[in-house]
Amino acid sequence: MTASPQNAAYHHLQEPSEWLFGTVEPRFVMEAHDGLSAIIARKAGFLGLWASGLGISTSLGYRDSNEASWSSVADVVERMAEASRLPVLVDGDTGFGNFNNARIFARSIARRGARGVCIEDKQFPKLNSFIGDRHYLADTKEFSGRLRAIKDACPDLVLIARTEALIAGASMEEALDRAHAYAEAGVDGILIHSRRSDAGEIVDFASRWKNRLPVIIVPTRYHTTPVCTYQEAGIATVIWANHSLRASVRAMRQVSSRIFRDRSVSGIEGGISTLEDIFELLDYGELGEAEQRYLPQ
Amino acid sequence: MTASPQNAAYHHLQEPSEWLFGTVEPRFVMEAHDGLSAIIARKAGFLGLWASGLGISTSLGYRDSNEASWSSVADVVERMAEASRLPVLVDGDTGFGNFNNARIFARSIARRGARGVCIEDKQFPKLNSFIGDRHYLADTKEFSGRLRAIKDACPDLVLIARTEALIAGASMEEALDRAHAYAEAGVDGILIHSRRSDAGEIVDFASRWKNRLPVIIVPTRYHTTPVCTYQEAGIATVIWANHSLRASVRAMRQVSSRIFRDRSVSGIEGGISTLEDIFELLDYGELGEAEQRYLPQ
Amino acid sequence: MTASPQNAAYHHLQEPSEWLFGTVEPRFVMEAHDGLSAIIARKAGFLGLWASGLGISTSLGYRDSNEASWSSVADVVERMAEASRLPVLVDGDTGFGNFNNARIFARSIARRGARGVCIEDKQFPKLNSFIGDRHYLADTKEFSGRLRAIKDACPDLVLIARTEALIAGASMEEALDRAHAYAEAGVDGILIHSRRSDAGEIVDFASRWKNRLPVIIVPTRYHTTPVCTYQEAGIATVIWANHSLRASVRAMRQVSSRIFRDRSVSGIEGGISTLEDIFELLDYGELGEAEQRYLPQ
Amino acid sequence: MTASPQNAAYHHLQEPSEWLFGTVEPRFVMEAHDGLSAIIARKAGFLGLWASGLGISTSLGYRDSNEASWSSVADVVERMAEASRLPVLVDGDTGFGNFNNARIFARSIARRGARGVCIEDKQFPKLNSFIGDRHYLADTKEFSGRLRAIKDACPDLVLIARTEALIAGASMEEALDRAHAYAEAGVDGILIHSRRSDAGEIVDFASRWKNRLPVIIVPTRYHTTPVCTYQEAGIATVIWANHSLRASVRAMRQVSSRIFRDRSVSGIEGGISTLEDIFELLDYGELGEAEQRYLPQ
Repeated sequence: MTASPQNAAYHHLQEPSEWLFGTVEPRFVMEAHDGLSAIIARKAGFLGLWASGLGISTSLGYRDSNEASWSSVADVVERMAEASRLPVLVDGDTGFGNFNNARIFARSIARRGARGVCIEDKQFPKLNSFIGDRHYLADTKEFSGRLRAIKDACPDLVLIARTEALIAGASMEEALDRAHAYAEAGVDGILIHSRRSDAGEIVDFASRWKNRLPVIIVPTRYHTTPVCTYQEAGIATVIWANHSLRASVRAMRQVSSRIFRDRSVSGIEGGISTLEDIFELLDYGELGEAEQRYLPQ
Repeated sequence: MTASPQNAAYHHLQEPSEWLFGTVEPRFVMEAHDGLSAIIARKAGFLGLWASGLGISTSLGYRDSNEASWSSVADVVERMAEASRLPVLVDGDTGFGNFNNARIFARSIARRGARGVCIEDKQFPKLNSFIGDRHYLADTKEFSGRLRAIKDACPDLVLIARTEALIAGASMEEALDRAHAYAEAGVDGILIHSRRSDAGEIVDFASRWKNRLPVIIVPTRYHTTPVCTYQEAGIATVIWANHSLRASVRAMRQVSSRIFRDRSVSGIEGGISTLEDIFELLDYGELGEAEQRYLPQ
Repeated sequence: MTASPQNAAYHHLQEPSEWLFGTVEPRFVMEAHDGLSAIIARKAGFLGLWASGLGISTSLGYRDSNEASWSSVADVVERMAEASRLPVLVDGDTGFGNFNNARIFARSIARRGARGVCIEDKQFPKLNSFIGDRHYLADTKEFSGRLRAIKDACPDLVLIARTEALIAGASMEEALDRAHAYAEAGVDGILIHSRRSDAGEIVDFASRWKNRLPVIIVPTRYHTTPVCTYQEAGIATVIWANHSLRASVRAMRQVSSRIFRDRSVSGIEGGISTLEDIFELLDYGELGEAEQRYLPQ
Repeated sequence: MTASPQNAAYHHLQEPSEWLFGTVEPRFVMEAHDGLSAIIARKAGFLGLWASGLGISTSLGYRDSNEASWSSVADVVERMAEASRLPVLVDGDTGFGNFNNARIFARSIARRGARGVCIEDKQFPKLNSFIGDRHYLADTKEFSGRLRAIKDACPDLVLIARTEALIAGASMEEALDRAHAYAEAGVDGILIHSRRSDAGEIVDFASRWKNRLPVIIVPTRYHTTPVCTYQEAGIATVIWANHSLRASVRAMRQVSSRIFRDRSVSGIEGGISTLEDIFELLDYGELGEAEQRYLPQ
């Protein structure tokens, strides 16, 4: 609920170029999966968030196969946006159905404070891109209809088309053809996804795409590539798509196992955040000040 | 959605003595704040969960002052119970209003799979017990009415009364008087809360209480006390109330800051869980098997 | 929250034959679309409710094309079940996706108090059966997988398969073949849907089906058929699928227009329910008694 | 999802004087309790909606004593605003707790499309104003703090203070003193509530208030008063607070009872709306056009 000057400052991040699309060098967008991880990303210095489908599903205890309803996802997005006051790009999976479901979802997250949405050219329900081989691409025309429907319903929402062509085993030509079709449909950027462990596919795509629209990448598998490679390739945006989630999983597993074994928390007390850290992150100070301001003394 | 033998086994934890109240020695109950942390607690070996008000609030990006609505809390409880299949004791704060709000909340979480609820003798909206000095106790009779209303509405839900007498600066006699009144109201156990850094108050309470009902403690501040002290004092249950949350906060902060500074994830990749870990935690294997079973081949 | 004797009585309606499937004559199940209409159906004497997809969508202000998320539908079902304490058969549309979405939905409504679910052999997102010609049947094997997944996940939930074969213009043989396939998949009853204005199709189906499983019908279009026709045909259940909704629409439109024109409510005051009627329907008396019981006097 | 010219027109109702506060004569605001009733109010010609606490509670199957959570109320408000595209003034009851709960609720409904909120000077949980005698007024200073907190958090939301002084049996002077205090706190209008069967109290209040701020009334009990009385008294807004709900209750009860008795719908078929009426209200035509525009042909 705070309205302190440093918070208000982020409201000036109005243009996509200010938080999402880099020009001289890529911008970096951090995964969040709930209000807390959104606040932490902000405190770390990030100017924009990726509301990760995998992250949100996992923290809810669902699998990344559209097990969570679209409105549950929208509720999480609202918490991220309100708690962090950062611009949020939402992982909209496939749009949760056809063009009509996609535009209803887009309107819902726009109301809840999202600033952008990304949808991918697969069918509902989807499966996480890093799992198995059952990845079937949507028909290009049908998917373009989903994109146009979102754009018409929410002209102010940044719209990103994510092509899973390379994930599905299609050719680079297919990926490029799809990207051009989605550009015709009116999107603001293209996310090209790859699960190779090097950036070869990405760099190849970017060089042939010639920056018709900003290019967004998700270097989860090809994480060893240095950022200068992306810069040279003209990548606009790098999404760190699941790292806050994965950090929390490792830590919770280690600490839980240790406590279970020790039957005590004294062994881990020094290695975890304090309650005071949490009160500071959530700005309990503002609540105290507000009590001074609004409660009779 | 899994129904594997080891999951099903937990359905036999029907009696409070099987997951919540220890007799020979205390049982340990682990904090969870979402579906994921609930699964992790289970994998670590815990037989019961504490759906922490602080934890749920924080992960939603709210402060622990009843900023989250009671139905939002109930939705999180549902995810914990379904994802982990563990018995869940829910931190019901003050019951979210009067006796009527309290019983509506209790019925809601019972439907969503909770097995117990704990409410504390303060007024709505509450403030976290570790913050400041504005902790005003509820009238004993009024609070007893809240307890009776829950018990009448949900006779199968384990009902714990938490007295904040010592937190509010009242005497040990007051704490004991309240505990006896709550016992008369029909509760199944007493949670005695202390924010001293040693277990003196707790041990004193337990020795004078003489096990009229099981005693539950939350050793957040007095964490250095060895478990044998609790055992000797006849404590039935020890709640590790916020440690999974605090572990995740430390890890997410460190990793987020490092990624922001490095403009790369390669420095942290080895120190966080893998995607495969996550797929295993969420039992993606079951989904694959189910596709074999239910989809045409 | 009431637990008065007449409410408690309904908890004895445990068997499908007690509220859903008639043997000597059909049972009648009434549409509800929110908590209020559920209470009204109960007061009128009905022993079971149909949580109508059209009704729920419309009252939420959505179209009956899966615009509402499955979790929003589940939330409405919960209000119906809790407010009325009647058994509820839920219109689950197509199951909201594939077998996995269907079983997740089924588990969700089972927790929320539903006693049965009906899904239809079309694809997600669906369109209301009384609109247009774009009704494409699902593959029989794939749909049977959806049914088996629900039955395995929720063995205690009454499972009804609704075939849209006749709506989609397929033959009676196709309808029967599908019904037999769904029976093999383990359903508890078959809903045969028709949009003809006479009951010919329904009677024909029933005579050839020979009561392998109970038959459920929805006489929305063929409403002039006398009930003895259904009885002779051996129909187990008649669903009045949208009549409470349609009654409310007519009344709200008339009253709203009259008030707008008159700039006064005095002309309609005598033709609408009183506040006291509403307080009685919602059992405010129980709240008053509970205040006596649970609040300090 | 429609964006047809007549819908878009309502977006010009930006100023409170255009939909809420009349100057020459009162403006009339119509109760709605869900998306459907909101659409119906719009079609009847109303330019603004009252999201009634009684109406929303009742349709959810809850009693008007804050049994519904604040976030459930906010979800209903969202459906009203999106489905009708009309400006909505939300009945915020007492603000759902203290100043902090009140401002969180206000922010939530503002995101969901509400244009104004009204809160009343009682304590949480409240009881409907037409029931019983247990109506205790909030401390004026404390309530003013709730008002200021909302105004600071949501400066663009029209803020109405409702005084229950006359309902609680306090004097006219007390009502006026409170109204002046709330004006100092920065509200945009005063709702003066009365449960007398004539407009005497209201007219008296207005004459002594001298239009310091717009006055809003709710003529539920004193419904026979002609509108010219309000006009002469300088009333800015008249809320028809529960009439759509009450119309629907009467109609649903009559129709449900008749169907139950007749075991047939043929007797009521002519007296209720048709499915086609519903398809027209919900603008299924737009969906058909959108399918033409967005689906491959």
